[in-house]
Amino acid sequence: MRIGIIGGTGREGRGLALRWARAGHSIVIGSRDAARAQEKARELGDRIEGGTNEDAARAGEVAVLTVPYAAHAETLRGLVDPLAGRILLDITVPLQPPKVSQVHLPEGGSAALEAQALLGPGVRVVAGLHHVTSAHLGDPDHAIDCDVLVCGDDEAAKSAVLGLVGDLGLRGLDAGVLRNSIALEALTPVLLYLNRKNKTNTGVRITGLP
Amino acid sequence: MRIGIIGGTGREGRGLALRWARAGHSIVIGSRDAARAQEKARELGDRIEGGTNEDAARAGEVAVLTVPYAAHAETLRGLVDPLAGRILLDITVPLQPPKVSQVHLPEGGSAALEAQALLGPGVRVVAGLHHVTSAHLGDPDHAIDCDVLVCGDDEAAKSAVLGLVGDLGLRGLDAGVLRNSIALEALTPVLLYLNRKNKTNTGVRITGLP
Repeated sequence: MRIGIIGGTGREGRGLALRWARAGHSIVIGSRDAARAQEKARELGDRIEGGTNEDAARAGEVAVLTVPYAAHAETLRGLVDPLAGRILLDITVPLQPPKVSQVHLPEGGSAALEAQALLGPGVRVVAGLHHVTSAHLGDPDHAIDCDVLVCGDDEAAKSAVLGLVGDLGLRGLDAGVLRNSIALEALTPVLLYLNRKNKTNTGVRITGLP
Repeated sequence: MRIGIIGGTGREGRGLALRWARAGHSIVIGSRDAARAQEKARELGDRIEGGTNEDAARAGEVAVLTVPYAAHAETLRGLVDPLAGRILLDITVPLQPPKVSQVHLPEGGSAALEAQALLGPGVRVVAGLHHVTSAHLGDPDHAIDCDVLVCGDDEAAKSAVLGLVGDLGLRGLDAGVLRNSIALEALTPVLLYLNRKNKTNTGVRITGLP
């Protein structure tokens, strides 16, 4: 599959690109600065190319959004047309620096709900991957002790994303409707609090599953 | 320690009372109907007595609130004086039946934040125990594969509650400020969704801790 990563030159984007390329997908990492994305892509290796965020949005059936929350709405406003008809996996956590270990509820309840409102029904927004530490994601040989909770209102879109999560070497779990992104996004500040307090990288596992 | 459980005749209250009594604490389970609470207490056995919700609120340094969200504000409004100077452990999840597997954000962000606003600074509100299935809690011999995330703005109050969580046979973890109750409460509908979808009782574990 061809996957675009919007804002893909950051730590999350790098890890996702490396892991998906290793699983056989081809990746377009996008940036506001296409030259920078192309340079990054060359460093990362085979099956990864760089381009603009619009190139990433148009790359394939699924685009992934990984930008700081401060750039979330502005980035999406410029991509309404390129994203039309596609699946957007939004991994944004609406952190409010410097208080990143306290829950911050954005106006729309969650970043993913805001994305869906902004993009309209022509884009199927799915939310997930809020709890995996980017440090671990970026090392493709690092086994990650963390489940990936994925939510969305379109079952087929959610199912496609759950498949891609499996290709990262992670266990993806269907966490319900897109509205449940409120819970998933809000859990990240709690994990950041636990990280700081215990000087470690925490993750989350769902117990009791068959 | 003497612990009061407001609304203690429900499933959560029963489990908490049994486990804490076994750990050597003495318990007052409260109800709007004191006679019903006394009858329940007799069934449950030693070190457990029944009374009104006001009796439970006044019983000791820590009172636990376990009522349906629909009765949350009304119950607390009647207990402002009895709770003064104490710690309130609020385990309420603001579910909105029948859609209990979708996040519902109450007006104040979380039930625990609403409790703190309603009770004022004279009561130290701590939130926790949102993710443990009451079915498992009620069987004191059942090992529970679930961490208990606890948050609050008063460190001493949080510490006292973490001790009581340990006495239940569970691992309690400091999850930060009371505002983080938004995340903890919102996670329960996600677990209820996973329960329904997988026909099981799920829980949550934090990984990566020392």
